[in-house]
Amino acid sequence: MINVGIVGGTGYTGVELIRLLSQHPDVTITQLTSRSEAGRRVADLFASLRGVSDLVFSDLDPKRLAECDVVFFATPHGVAMQHAEFLLQNNTKVIDLAADFRLQSLEDFKTWYQLDHACPKLLREAVYGLPEVNRAAIKKARVVGNPGCYPTTAILGLKPLIDQQNQQRQALIEPWIIIDAKSGVSGAGRQAKMDLLFSETADNFKAYGVAGHRHLPEIVQGVNALLSQHNHAVQRHDIRFVPHLVPMIRGMFSTIHLRLTDAGRKQDWQALYEQAYADETFIDIMPQATYPDTRSVRASNRLRIAVQTLPDSLMLTILVVQDNLVKGAAGQAVQNMNLMFELPETHGLTLTPVVP
Amino acid sequence: MINVGIVGGTGYTGVELIRLLSQHPDVTITQLTSRSEAGRRVADLFASLRGVSDLVFSDLDPKRLAECDVVFFATPHGVAMQHAEFLLQNNTKVIDLAADFRLQSLEDFKTWYQLDHACPKLLREAVYGLPEVNRAAIKKARVVGNPGCYPTTAILGLKPLIDQQNQQRQALIEPWIIIDAKSGVSGAGRQAKMDLLFSETADNFKAYGVAGHRHLPEIVQGVNALLSQHNHAVQRHDIRFVPHLVPMIRGMFSTIHLRLTDAGRKQDWQALYEQAYADETFIDIMPQATYPDTRSVRASNRLRIAVQTLPDSLMLTILVVQDNLVKGAAGQAVQNMNLMFELPETHGLTLTPVVP
Amino acid sequence: MINVGIVGGTGYTGVELIRLLSQHPDVTITQLTSRSEAGRRVADLFASLRGVSDLVFSDLDPKRLAECDVVFFATPHGVAMQHAEFLLQNNTKVIDLAADFRLQSLEDFKTWYQLDHACPKLLREAVYGLPEVNRAAIKKARVVGNPGCYPTTAILGLKPLIDQQNQQRQALIEPWIIIDAKSGVSGAGRQAKMDLLFSETADNFKAYGVAGHRHLPEIVQGVNALLSQHNHAVQRHDIRFVPHLVPMIRGMFSTIHLRLTDAGRKQDWQALYEQAYADETFIDIMPQATYPDTRSVRASNRLRIAVQTLPDSLMLTILVVQDNLVKGAAGQAVQNMNLMFELPETHGLTLTPVVP
Amino acid sequence: MINVGIVGGTGYTGVELIRLLSQHPDVTITQLTSRSEAGRRVADLFASLRGVSDLVFSDLDPKRLAECDVVFFATPHGVAMQHAEFLLQNNTKVIDLAADFRLQSLEDFKTWYQLDHACPKLLREAVYGLPEVNRAAIKKARVVGNPGCYPTTAILGLKPLIDQQNQQRQALIEPWIIIDAKSGVSGAGRQAKMDLLFSETADNFKAYGVAGHRHLPEIVQGVNALLSQHNHAVQRHDIRFVPHLVPMIRGMFSTIHLRLTDAGRKQDWQALYEQAYADETFIDIMPQATYPDTRSVRASNRLRIAVQTLPDSLMLTILVVQDNLVKGAAGQAVQNMNLMFELPETHGLTLTPVVP
Repeated sequence: MINVGIVGGTGYTGVELIRLLSQHPDVTITQLTSRSEAGRRVADLFASLRGVSDLVFSDLDPKRLAECDVVFFATPHGVAMQHAEFLLQNNTKVIDLAADFRLQSLEDFKTWYQLDHACPKLLREAVYGLPEVNRAAIKKARVVGNPGCYPTTAILGLKPLIDQQNQQRQALIEPWIIIDAKSGVSGAGRQAKMDLLFSETADNFKAYGVAGHRHLPEIVQGVNALLSQHNHAVQRHDIRFVPHLVPMIRGMFSTIHLRLTDAGRKQDWQALYEQAYADETFIDIMPQATYPDTRSVRASNRLRIAVQTLPDSLMLTILVVQDNLVKGAAGQAVQNMNLMFELPETHGLTLTPVVP
Repeated sequence: MINVGIVGGTGYTGVELIRLLSQHPDVTITQLTSRSEAGRRVADLFASLRGVSDLVFSDLDPKRLAECDVVFFATPHGVAMQHAEFLLQNNTKVIDLAADFRLQSLEDFKTWYQLDHACPKLLREAVYGLPEVNRAAIKKARVVGNPGCYPTTAILGLKPLIDQQNQQRQALIEPWIIIDAKSGVSGAGRQAKMDLLFSETADNFKAYGVAGHRHLPEIVQGVNALLSQHNHAVQRHDIRFVPHLVPMIRGMFSTIHLRLTDAGRKQDWQALYEQAYADETFIDIMPQATYPDTRSVRASNRLRIAVQTLPDSLMLTILVVQDNLVKGAAGQAVQNMNLMFELPETHGLTLTPVVP
Repeated sequence: MINVGIVGGTGYTGVELIRLLSQHPDVTITQLTSRSEAGRRVADLFASLRGVSDLVFSDLDPKRLAECDVVFFATPHGVAMQHAEFLLQNNTKVIDLAADFRLQSLEDFKTWYQLDHACPKLLREAVYGLPEVNRAAIKKARVVGNPGCYPTTAILGLKPLIDQQNQQRQALIEPWIIIDAKSGVSGAGRQAKMDLLFSETADNFKAYGVAGHRHLPEIVQGVNALLSQHNHAVQRHDIRFVPHLVPMIRGMFSTIHLRLTDAGRKQDWQALYEQAYADETFIDIMPQATYPDTRSVRASNRLRIAVQTLPDSLMLTILVVQDNLVKGAAGQAVQNMNLMFELPETHGLTLTPVVP
Repeated sequence: MINVGIVGGTGYTGVELIRLLSQHPDVTITQLTSRSEAGRRVADLFASLRGVSDLVFSDLDPKRLAECDVVFFATPHGVAMQHAEFLLQNNTKVIDLAADFRLQSLEDFKTWYQLDHACPKLLREAVYGLPEVNRAAIKKARVVGNPGCYPTTAILGLKPLIDQQNQQRQALIEPWIIIDAKSGVSGAGRQAKMDLLFSETADNFKAYGVAGHRHLPEIVQGVNALLSQHNHAVQRHDIRFVPHLVPMIRGMFSTIHLRLTDAGRKQDWQALYEQAYADETFIDIMPQATYPDTRSVRASNRLRIAVQTLPDSLMLTILVVQDNLVKGAAGQAVQNMNLMFELPETHGLTLTPVVP
C-alpha cells in the first residue's frame, strides 16, 4: 500500500481526493493536515465521510509528512513550493493541485500569482501533470504540477488538432483560438466569499476574468508546448480565454472556436479526434452530431469531446466537458499518482458518472 | 457471477441500477429491456454510461428474461405482477421497484393504484424488502417488493422508537405520527410532465399529495407491522404524511414529529437509536446536536438519522435523510439482491457520497 | 412626498426596500447609509439598480437621518434601538426590520439575541408590525418592529383558527402546534458565510435551528397575543418550530400541523379562513383542494394559505407561502409605512408575482 | 384604454405578457385565448395571477379578436400568419412573438420552420420589431414580428460596431462573428419535453443547436440589414452561433467574439458604445472593466452590454445580457405596442429588476 498525505483537506479538491482515494485499492491515507481544523475529525467537517474515514486533521509537520510515499497539496497557491524540496530529499513525491509547479516562466508566475517562486530549480524539474500529453515524463517525475481545470479542457481539446498541424507542417487554423469556457461554482473553491453565495450565483450567469485570468498563461504554455517541436509558436495574445460562472455545483464546459484554413477544411476532424484518443481510457470522443453535457461526466474522471464542422462555414467548434473537481483536479491528481507509482492508470478512477 | 436482468432501464431507478450494478463485483447485467427504446444502446440514451456499458435495450421477452438469476423491475406499477409467476417457475427471482409487491392489502392496492392485482397468491409470499426490518425473510425470499422511498425513511426513522415501546409495553408517544417529508425532483421519475419542468420546479417549493399520497398506506402497513406483535395497532388516520417537492435532483428529508408521553420523556432516545442501529452498515445515527443534510448521502446507500428532544417540551423530532434513488430505490434493491444471493450485504454499495 | 431614510442598504432586505420604494408613488428615498460602503453608489454595488437609483451610500449621521419622515433599519439586530429615541424626538418615525422592537420580553430578547435592550421604555411603546393583526395600532405607531419572516407565516396562518377558538370559548385543537417551516437561502441574509455558499446549499436540503431558533419566542408571543383576550395561554413549549433551508433564493413555506378536538372537527375551516381574510388584499385563501407554491408569490407582497382537513383524521394542515423578502420583510415594512402615513395600504405593493 | 387580445396565454411569453400588461397604465386585456384551456380562469392555471386577473381563456374566435385594438400572438410558429390578414382588415394591429413575421426570406422560413408562409404579401409589409434599430418603422407598422431572444442580444450587441464600420467605410473587424450564447431554460417554452425536466437540466450545462439553430438566419438578416446600406454584406457562413442551456429559469447571456483589424484597434469602443445608446432607456452600457450578470436584468426590460478590448490582443469581446422573457420576448412586444400606439415607450416597462 502506498502511504498518502494530503495537505489542506478542508477544501473541495481535498475532500474530493479523500473520496477518490478512500475507494482506491492500493492506497492508505495516513495524514491529513489543516491549519484551521487541526484536531478535528474530517468526518465532523464533512458528514459525507462518516463511516468512510476516521482521519483526524493535524497540523502540517514536514517531518511526519516525509514519512509518506507521496503528498498531495490541496492548498492555496504558494504552499507546496515551501515544502517540496524537503519532501523530495526524504524520497516523498509531491503532487501539487495548486499552481506552484504549473508555469515554467517565473515571470508569469509572479505576474499572475503575485508570488516569488520559492524553488525555481525544482520548478524546472517539475512535470506538468497532464497524462494524455506527458505520460512518459510523469512516470519518472518526483514533482508534478497538476493542471488547472480550464487548461485541462483547452489543451486536451486542442491537442489532436495541433498534432495534425505539426504533422502536416502547415497551418490548419487561422492564428487565433477562442476558448469560451463555463464552470460550476465549486471551481472557485470552498471560501466564504460574498460572490459565491447561493443567493448571488443561483439563477444567474456571468463572465469573470474577462480582462485576464490566471489560467491563460497556463493554456498558452500548454499550447506552445504542443507546437514548439515545429518551431511554430502561438503567441499569448492570440488566445482569447473568457470564463463564465454557471449556477451548478460541478462541471466544466469549454466551447473552443477556431477558423479553418483551406488546408484545414480538407481534414476529417471527427476521424482525427477519434484516432488521437483511441487508447485513452478517460477521453471519449462523442459520435458525429452528438454533444456532451456536463452531467455525463459528473463525479467521474472522464472528459468528453465533440467536434463540429459545418458544410458552409470555415468555423470549427470543439466542445469539451469534464467534472472540474475530478479530471479537472483531484481525479487527474490520482491519475498522476498512479503513473508515478506504476499502478494501473485507472485504479481508483473507475467510478461511473452520477446521473441524474 | 449472478446474471441480472433489468426491465425498464430508461427511468431514473433503471439508470441508477445500471450505475450501481456495473460497479458490483459479483454481477453481470445480461438483459435490459425497454418498450420504447428497443434496439438502442443504453449509452446512447445516457451518455454517462459511454465506456461503462455496452448493453442494448431489447423488448421484454419472458423466456429470455427467465435465463437470468434475478430480474429487477424498474417499471411503472403493474408490470412486475404480470411476469413474476412465470419467472419464479423458472427459478428466476424477482425484485420489483414499483408498488406491485409492497401492499399486502389488495383493497389498498386497488384504492391507491387503481389496479387489480394479477397474482394475489404470490403477493402473500412476497417479502417487503426493507433489510433493517426484514433481513431474515429477505434472505429466503423469491419475490421482493422494494419499499417506496418515503416509507423507507418513515419506517426506519420510527423503528427504534416503536421497538422500545413494544419492549416497555406502554405508550411512549401520543397516538399520532406526523411525517413532514421533502423530496428531490428525481423522485417523480423520468416523465415528460409539465409540472416537473425546470422552469416550474426550480426556485420553487410546494407540497403535493396533501389530501392523500400512495405512500401513506405503505407507511401505515410498515408501522403496524412493527407494532402488531404486541397487538397495539396504529390506525391509518393517526399518521399524517405530507410530502413536499424540493428544487434539487436527489435527496429525501423526512421530519418526523411526535409527542412524548410521560414514560416517553424518561427514555434516552439518542442512546436508544444508536444502539438500535449499531450493527447496521447503512444507517448512521448523527451525534447529539448534529443534524444531517441530504448531500451527505448523495449517490450513496446511507441513511442518516438525528433525534432531538428539548428540555422544556414533550415534542420529539426525528430527522431522516437518504438519497431517494439509492437507499430509497436502486441501492436498497441491490442490498436486497445481496441478501437473496447470500452475498456480502455491502457489495456494490460502498460508494462514498459525492460532496460537494 | 414622504422622505425616507434607509439604514443598512447593502443587505437583501435593504436592496429589496429600494426596489419597492423606487416604485412607490408617494415616497422619495433621500438617505441611504452603510458603514462599509459609504461614498459608493448603490448602483455600483447592485447593478440591478443602474438607471433606477442614483443614491450614494453615506455614513450614518443621526442628525441628517432625523430630517427624514421615516427611517427603515435594514441592519443587524441592535442598531435600531441605538437611534430610535433620537429620531422620535425629532419626529422621525422608525420601522425596524431587525428584532429590536419585536419581543416585548426583555428576558427573551437577551436570551435569544445576546443583547441588553437599549431603550426598554420605547420598546413598550413599539407596535408589532403585522397589519392583518395590529392595523389600528400601527396607524398610530411611531415605532414599528417589523415581524420576522417565519412568525409572519405562523401567526397569519393560525389567526383565524385561534380567533374562532376564542369566539367559541372552547379548545378546537389539542394544546400543541407544530410549524414545519422551509425558507429560501436569501432569508439568511447577504453574509459571507461558508454554509451559505452555492456549493454548500445547492442540490441540498437540511434543517437548522432544530434545538431552538430566535423566531420561536416571537411566534409564541404572537400566538399568545391572539389568545390572551380569553385568558387561555399557549405555553412556549407547546409550539414546535423546525425551520429548514431550501435550495432556492426566495420563498418561504410553512406547513402547520394541528390536531383537532371534537369541537374542532365540526368547524368548516375552509369557510372560516375565507371569511377571516375576505377584506385583506395581501392574503389569499386557496380554493379547496388547491395548494400554493412559493413561486406564486415571488417578488410580491402576497401571502397564500391553504387549509386541509381529511375525512378520516383529526389532523388539520395549514399551508402558508410568502416571499420571505417581501411580505416576510421589506414589503411588510412598506405596508406598515403606508398605514403609519395614512396612505393607501397597497401603494408600492401591487407588483405581480414573477412566474416563471 | 387600448383593448388588447392575447392568443396563446398558457406559455411563458403569454403569462409574462399578462404580468406586464396588467401593470400597464393604458391597456386593458379584453381577450385571452387558448385551445387547451378554454373556459378556465387564467388564475387557476397560474396562481401568481390570483387577485391580479379575472380573465378566462376562450377559444380563438377571429371575429371577437378583431374587436381588439391589437392582438399579441404568444403561440407556436405558424399561428399568427393564419389570422393576421383578417385582423388587419378589421383595423386590429398584430404583434407576433413567434417567427411568422421575422424572416423576410420565404426560403429561410421554410428551411428553418418547415412551414410555407400563409401570407407572403403581408410578410413584406411586416416590420422587425427591434425598437433600437427600427423605431420609426415600428411606429407606423400594422404588423410587427417580435424578434427572437438570441437575435435581440446579437443585433443590439453588434449595432454600434457595424454602424461605426459603415461610417468609417472600412472593415473594423475580420469578416466573421462568433456568438457564444447562453440561455435560461424558460427560453425553451412551457412544453412537457423530457429534456426540459428539472432532473435533466439542473446541475448541468450543455450546448444545443450546434449544427444549426433557427435564430441563425434571423441574426444574419439583422446584421445584413445594418450593413446593407453600404453594400457590404456579411454572409451567413461567417456568423457562428452556438447556443447553450444554463440551469437557471430566466436570463440570456451572449458573449460575442470578434477580431479587430488595424483600423478597428484604433477605435475607442467603450466611448462608441456609450454614445450609440446614450438615448436608449432600455440599453445600459456597463462602465469600463465592469461586466453584467443576468440577474441584474431579471424580470425587467433592460439589456446591458459590456465591451472589452485587451492591451495585447486583437480580440474584441462584447457581453450582452437580458431577461429572455422580457427584452427577449414579452417586454419587447410591449415596447413595440407602445410605439405603435404613440404611448410613452416605457409605459408598463419600468419594473426594477428583481435581485436577489
